Amino acid sequence: MRKILLIGAGKSASYLIKYLLEKSEAEKLQLIVGDLDEENAKKHLGNHKNAQAIKLDVFDKTSRENAIKNCDIVVSMLPARFHIEVAKDCITFNKNMVTASYVSDEMQALHDAVCEKGLVFMNEIGVDPGIDHMSAMNVIDNIRDAGGKIILFESFTGGLVAPESDTNLWNYKFTWNPRNVVVAGQGGAAKFLQEGTYKYIPYNRLFRRTEFLDVDGFGRFEGYANRDSLKYQSVYGLDHAKTLYRGTMRRVGFSRAWNMFVQLGMTDDSYTIDDSENMSYRDFVNAFLPYSPTDSVELKFRHALKIDQDDTIWDKFVELDLFSNQKFVALKKATPAQILQKILMDSWSLDANDKDMIVMYHKFGYELNGAKHQIDSTMVTIGEDQTYTAMSKTVGLPVAMATLAILNKKITTPGVQIPITKEVYKPILEELENYGIAFTEKEVPYLGYNPLNL
Amino acid sequence: MRKILLIGAGKSASYLIKYLLEKSEAEKLQLIVGDLDEENAKKHLGNHKNAQAIKLDVFDKTSRENAIKNCDIVVSMLPARFHIEVAKDCITFNKNMVTASYVSDEMQALHDAVCEKGLVFMNEIGVDPGIDHMSAMNVIDNIRDAGGKIILFESFTGGLVAPESDTNLWNYKFTWNPRNVVVAGQGGAAKFLQEGTYKYIPYNRLFRRTEFLDVDGFGRFEGYANRDSLKYQSVYGLDHAKTLYRGTMRRVGFSRAWNMFVQLGMTDDSYTIDDSENMSYRDFVNAFLPYSPTDSVELKFRHALKIDQDDTIWDKFVELDLFSNQKFVALKKATPAQILQKILMDSWSLDANDKDMIVMYHKFGYELNGAKHQIDSTMVTIGEDQTYTAMSKTVGLPVAMATLAILNKKITTPGVQIPITKEVYKPILEELENYGIAFTEKEVPYLGYNPLNL
Repeated sequence: MRKILLIGAGKSASYLIKYLLEKSEAEKLQLIVGDLDEENAKKHLGNHKNAQAIKLDVFDKTSRENAIKNCDIVVSMLPARFHIEVAKDCITFNKNMVTASYVSDEMQALHDAVCEKGLVFMNEIGVDPGIDHMSAMNVIDNIRDAGGKIILFESFTGGLVAPESDTNLWNYKFTWNPRNVVVAGQGGAAKFLQEGTYKYIPYNRLFRRTEFLDVDGFGRFEGYANRDSLKYQSVYGLDHAKTLYRGTMRRVGFSRAWNMFVQLGMTDDSYTIDDSENMSYRDFVNAFLPYSPTDSVELKFRHALKIDQDDTIWDKFVELDLFSNQKFVALKKATPAQILQKILMDSWSLDANDKDMIVMYHKFGYELNGAKHQIDSTMVTIGEDQTYTAMSKTVGLPVAMATLAILNKKITTPGVQIPITKEVYKPILEELENYGIAFTEKEVPYLGYNPLNL
Repeated sequence: MRKILLIGAGKSASYLIKYLLEKSEAEKLQLIVGDLDEENAKKHLGNHKNAQAIKLDVFDKTSRENAIKNCDIVVSMLPARFHIEVAKDCITFNKNMVTASYVSDEMQALHDAVCEKGLVFMNEIGVDPGIDHMSAMNVIDNIRDAGGKIILFESFTGGLVAPESDTNLWNYKFTWNPRNVVVAGQGGAAKFLQEGTYKYIPYNRLFRRTEFLDVDGFGRFEGYANRDSLKYQSVYGLDHAKTLYRGTMRRVGFSRAWNMFVQLGMTDDSYTIDDSENMSYRDFVNAFLPYSPTDSVELKFRHALKIDQDDTIWDKFVELDLFSNQKFVALKKATPAQILQKILMDSWSLDANDKDMIVMYHKFGYELNGAKHQIDSTMVTIGEDQTYTAMSKTVGLPVAMATLAILNKKITTPGVQIPITKEVYKPILEELENYGIAFTEKEVPYLGYNPLNL
């Protein structure tokens, strides 16, 4: 039996565990799931004979080292900042490692040591980052192999609610970390490349510079820019591409309404509000509006944000009970962002039967034989229930497949890496199709932003 | 002769030096001006027999200690962050000290040691902070002495260009540190108190929530909120005031136009622009606007900011040559704020004959015998030329007067302090009137924000 140590049995581990246990007989796998909460680990495993739950505190050196020493490969599903000690032990004890997290500077710094030992440290092999890398590189490599030259690459991902569970005016529910949604886009201007020119969007305009994206069978979405669209420019080999844009997908109308929170300062996470504990939701809104002894919070809100009387955006705010003086913040020394998150969680939490949805949209513009072409590639995955979510499926399956591929010596190139080589992505993309995670590619007229070379 | 050591012979030292030298015979003063650039110090002194210029590097311990040891009082006109070593030496060698800077945490931490030695460390005795403290406390104390209770305090200061030198559409020129103007308001929401309620204004709305202020003989100004209007609430004894607001004054229309820079992200100082060195002003503006092969930067700018064809705000931007493709940024790895500063310095630098102007506006709302009253107090000072500016006058004169008062044992209460006691402010405010720095007080109907208690 080959021993796989999975550290962290969080929300995204369900599909990962299911996959590995289903393969455990044929592939001779034993899965050891270590979690700070042993019961949590057990919950995922049932009584599967090839599985074992252990209590594991990654900050306890001895138990961490023992667990790593005794396995054949380590999968860390911890939050990214907790990987590093595990990674160092993996080097010490000659173990390969897989994570779904962004490669941190600390992780990258281990590259030489990892190579020296001939180990594979595969990262960013979940969803955004992960499936986006693989599906993009697949098309990019195909275009290149055919002699084409990439001139435009745009890539959008959204974690959304499935159409059948889409029951509010924002067409949005929290399917992952609510905090990340509330503070999304903060911390600096979004930077991207458009027709050879660097473009910058400050936070206060980010949600007003969206573009529409139509996905067959799922209607229209919108995308707003991520902080750094150029992060993978060199990694993907796109140094000569003229347009590079990475974005986040929402249903149409979300961003325009969200921008109202941004404009008023309700997403700010940098200071605490006085007496937040005793504020009603109405008081919270009013803190961002001028004082008036006569005008209502509603009218001041409409006036400040220039919301016409007949603009249906208004209903979105009413739906959130934003103007309620009966609902209370009840958080001590909270930042505006924390308070807004609480208000939204009242309305945007998934119901027990709700399903989530992952949507991805890539655009590839390229030149071939003197003509400009474009391929659009889309993927939609809908969750099964609240355990086997689309998120856990799209994160967990590629992690599991990569883990098995490394065990089986199908992936052998050593180093700290991400899944951008054919060796890695081809078999995984193919296998993902069996699980319903499939990309639809279609040729569309090249649009770019200057199709006629004006 | 009493020896005064003045450290730092910058722009704001001219009036300070002039005052002290004029008094030097009668008061038996010898002024030693220490500056990193000895020639710079000499320039201010002429051949006055009671003055001496020395080269002084505050980071050179020996020469700093020697200079401090050999004087009777130290005036530090260095940037605030450089005061602390000087202050520590003053404690060691039992010297009083005067600065025009905000009391830093480091400076405040010296309070006990300063008291123990019976020394006076007077700070914030220039202009904003300084004359604002003194003039405000004068009225506040008068109201209290008459049995009144302060319910509202608003205070605005502006460093502007004098009407006779006001020659551009922004009615603004840089009379002090341009960088502070470009990044003004950044770093967190502005917080103030309005009729008992805390209010917060995010940066992206700061320049749209101004109020108008009329100054007799000088027309209308506008004010936008400072970061923390509550900073002096306790210090001024205003813990029960319902409205507290501190702001910065500009001529009407400045803020609405400035907000356009804020909205586009052109004041951001947190990242550098790629290839800023080779950008034209037009390229810089275009970096914040969507790509278009056909539309002009001008139209994209108007569209993004919703500037109507006939809105005269447009002329303000044209006046700055903002759309020029002939003027170049020529700054390497510059932030948007640095580039904008450069563009503005082309247009907003003072001409050789230009004069500056300091404007101050206080509002005091109070209750007396069951009725609500209001006193507005205003001050305007215009500079004489580019050496004897209004800024150097309003900063330097109170510093000089406090220095002499300490030497003459008129100010004796020990400690790290600011000028809020009658002992300190009364004689200085009276003497400032002789130099044309005078406040005009007038009773006005109490406005507050809820005059009828609705």
